[in-house]
Amino acid sequence: MTDERMNGADALLQTFVANGVTACFANPGTSEMQFVSALDREPAMRSVLCLFEGVATGAADGYGRVAGKPACTLLHLGPGYGNGLANLHNARRAYTPVVNVIGDHATYHRQYDAPLNSDIPAIVGPNSIWVKSADSPDAVGALAAEAVAASFGPPGGPVSLILPADSAWSPANGKGPVADLPVRPVPDANLVYGVAERIRAAKKPLLLISGDLTLAKGLALVARIEAAGVRVMTAGFTSKQARGAGRFLPARMAYFAEQALDDLAGTDLMVLAEAKLPVAFFAYPDRASVLVPEGCVVETLCDVGGDGLAAIEMLAEALGAPKEGPASEHKLPDMPSGPVTAGTVGASFARHLPESAIVSDDGVTSSAGAAGYGARAAPHDWLSLTGGAIGQGMPVAVGAAVAAPDRKVISLNGDGAAMYTVQSLWTMARENLDVTVIVFANHVYRILSIELDRTGAGNAGPAASRLLDLGDPRIDWVSMARGMGVPASRCETAEAFDAAFAAAMQESGPKLIEVVLG
Amino acid sequence: MTDERMNGADALLQTFVANGVTACFANPGTSEMQFVSALDREPAMRSVLCLFEGVATGAADGYGRVAGKPACTLLHLGPGYGNGLANLHNARRAYTPVVNVIGDHATYHRQYDAPLNSDIPAIVGPNSIWVKSADSPDAVGALAAEAVAASFGPPGGPVSLILPADSAWSPANGKGPVADLPVRPVPDANLVYGVAERIRAAKKPLLLISGDLTLAKGLALVARIEAAGVRVMTAGFTSKQARGAGRFLPARMAYFAEQALDDLAGTDLMVLAEAKLPVAFFAYPDRASVLVPEGCVVETLCDVGGDGLAAIEMLAEALGAPKEGPASEHKLPDMPSGPVTAGTVGASFARHLPESAIVSDDGVTSSAGAAGYGARAAPHDWLSLTGGAIGQGMPVAVGAAVAAPDRKVISLNGDGAAMYTVQSLWTMARENLDVTVIVFANHVYRILSIELDRTGAGNAGPAASRLLDLGDPRIDWVSMARGMGVPASRCETAEAFDAAFAAAMQESGPKLIEVVLG
Repeated sequence: MTDERMNGADALLQTFVANGVTACFANPGTSEMQFVSALDREPAMRSVLCLFEGVATGAADGYGRVAGKPACTLLHLGPGYGNGLANLHNARRAYTPVVNVIGDHATYHRQYDAPLNSDIPAIVGPNSIWVKSADSPDAVGALAAEAVAASFGPPGGPVSLILPADSAWSPANGKGPVADLPVRPVPDANLVYGVAERIRAAKKPLLLISGDLTLAKGLALVARIEAAGVRVMTAGFTSKQARGAGRFLPARMAYFAEQALDDLAGTDLMVLAEAKLPVAFFAYPDRASVLVPEGCVVETLCDVGGDGLAAIEMLAEALGAPKEGPASEHKLPDMPSGPVTAGTVGASFARHLPESAIVSDDGVTSSAGAAGYGARAAPHDWLSLTGGAIGQGMPVAVGAAVAAPDRKVISLNGDGAAMYTVQSLWTMARENLDVTVIVFANHVYRILSIELDRTGAGNAGPAASRLLDLGDPRIDWVSMARGMGVPASRCETAEAFDAAFAAAMQESGPKLIEVVLG
Repeated sequence: MTDERMNGADALLQTFVANGVTACFANPGTSEMQFVSALDREPAMRSVLCLFEGVATGAADGYGRVAGKPACTLLHLGPGYGNGLANLHNARRAYTPVVNVIGDHATYHRQYDAPLNSDIPAIVGPNSIWVKSADSPDAVGALAAEAVAASFGPPGGPVSLILPADSAWSPANGKGPVADLPVRPVPDANLVYGVAERIRAAKKPLLLISGDLTLAKGLALVARIEAAGVRVMTAGFTSKQARGAGRFLPARMAYFAEQALDDLAGTDLMVLAEAKLPVAFFAYPDRASVLVPEGCVVETLCDVGGDGLAAIEMLAEALGAPKEGPASEHKLPDMPSGPVTAGTVGASFARHLPESAIVSDDGVTSSAGAAGYGARAAPHDWLSLTGGAIGQGMPVAVGAAVAAPDRKVISLNGDGAAMYTVQSLWTMARENLDVTVIVFANHVYRILSIELDRTGAGNAGPAASRLLDLGDPRIDWVSMARGMGVPASRCETAEAFDAAFAAAMQESGPKLIEVVLG
């Protein structure tokens, strides 16, 4: 007599779907075959094959940022997770909910240290806000529900559910519950009034925001604070920021410490709202680590993961702020001409960007043009590299396009960054995702040639130069894209890019445009 | 007054060179700029830029297997290590000495949890046999020497030296010592005589070998044991195995547990020499985990990392073994014809392989032809996927070619595996490495379609099939290779492949041949 109960893999998928997790970015191996098979019995789960795990995890990050709920990944033991680690690092820094399912050996097989065995909890720990292993099939459903809820935090982040093969293939008692989602802590009124007092007493107060406050609703609120005389600033890299016409564009913390401190000179009060204490991306000899001017007092209005919207609304009332604050105008740049540059790309970007577009930015030194001109473009959302691990531009775009099939997605990539997870292009072709990929081909790790000097390492000699140079040989991005089924073109003039980008915005489906910078 | 002493990065490089570490596979970031700069002052260190860290770590594995000494890697904090984790997992399973240098934030900057901060010791721990952080510049030299020595084990493996940015940029007292290398334990004579006794008493004894015993000298010794009536077998995947004409070819442990146990039926004594207890690669419902027949006694002649050569020489004498054992004949196959298959590729491989070639095998289900026919080819070395994490075929070839510039390197890759670290092709072009890359394009994760059934997951429905299928769209490997500067061709017939492979063996420099399998 066969056991007619569902197996652990079925329990997992059914629980995920019941908890709203309906997209899976996968690169499976032998230990995940039951999960793969169970997909045929759970049509509500959309599975997307990625030919490298770094694509899958970056896609889950992009999906989570856009959908506001987690996708799951399917990863093959410790090495499979390792391949996806860097983009989970970025997701952790973006507070994106992601549910990783990491297949493992059968529980009884672990003791034999087979070739693919490794210490999965140790590897996943640093980039997971929750880690558990489902060591029996009956545990799978409950843990799946717990994992989804845990991924919301607050603040949210990647969680890791380890799924041994025998827990997946053995009969299970049933699916897990629908988990309650965590509630964000309510702001304390006395704390908010206290902050309002200090703002009134300050000469040059600053509000540093992150999290929900960079979305459309949050920006409308903090614009009122700006209108009340408080400078509003975002961290250098935000998980998702509403930009473009009609949205308030706060100042942005400069990347380099000395520039940031110059910009902040005279600031005597810094109020943090869903933001961490600002620190330099890297340390440099004889430069500051903490980006707070001497003598400036730091107050926390609302922790990361707290209800920043409620806190800012209370603060605005306490300050008697105007009902409306500043917003960007819709004022498109002229047609650019001449050699293509980051700036001319930015102008074309603003000219042709459709409303509600999503931008995945891994452009490193080359996306400043698009970011600058973008404030004048149609309203759109901007997803930044929060964790500093390059190689998320295309994967995040994959996930964003799966989460929002009706919105145009633009992926901005430095050529060095684009190589990291170039396999993304294949998934864009396979799924016919509406993503326009821009690769800025400057043939160098430009940021590093800047950093070499700043770290006191001096000028690059022949050996050092060669480690920063991508131009020998030059990568042919059109060939690369076509090799993976994505139509592509190369632009050397501003006019050519403007035309290619305009066409891409009109059409649907994946495209790659190589921008030849010098 | 400036401090004229060397800095920590100089101390590191000079110590590495003094300890024989003269190759560095690198993908640097800001925190590694001092190391990059110091390369200009230490010309004895060859640095090789890789456009993804998985290429760098796999290359270090290939280098270590071929050179018998470590290369170093240069990796960018936790995420950079993460990108290289899977191939370090493989290196750990191959017992390959590798010295990872992982740049970190300045020691005083760590406390601020900047965006790229993570728990590096936790991430690197599971795949490192030694981990230390050089938290002062004066510690760098001594720790560098210690790291190199530690990488030799025995058994060898990857070690991880964390290098905070301030330890690299601050003045250091000098380079570290030349470290003594570890000595392998001498075999115990009584133990060896005891094993010889038990072999004589056994009906069907088996010697399972790994480590040094699969190299030319070891194989000549174990061939004597075979000639004395003991069946000799290798583990399924060996780090480096001397193969081809004149070399003894032991039996190979079958991949699937039931086939392995069928093959071992009647074996009443299993002697392990530098080999672990054989276990199944994966567990399957109702199949064995341990690949030892019931009633078979297991004896350890020599631990992994022990002096297997000495132990086998003593055993051969104790058994009164003949002075010479069997060896493969040089007997080339005929020219193949018809559609190209794994088998016809194998025949061409054997026909044209030059003496002393090195084969990096990540061919998954498609390299059996080359492995089978290869026994009759000119003598060569074969590097297998020891850790099961696909994506090492091209990176390991990069490292092998750097370690042995006068030897032809052939890289065998399944198409799924090749996508993992496809950026390797660029480094082959940049360094003009003498590597012929073969990609078996069967447009499917073939091994998984076999495993799906074996794990009891049944037949693949539409969703499951799609997660194993690489054929929509088909990857154009010729475009991919050309996009990264590697000349490439596509073969659909046995004759075409024979001609292309023959030409590649005559010429020098990187080439890619796409083998279209159906």
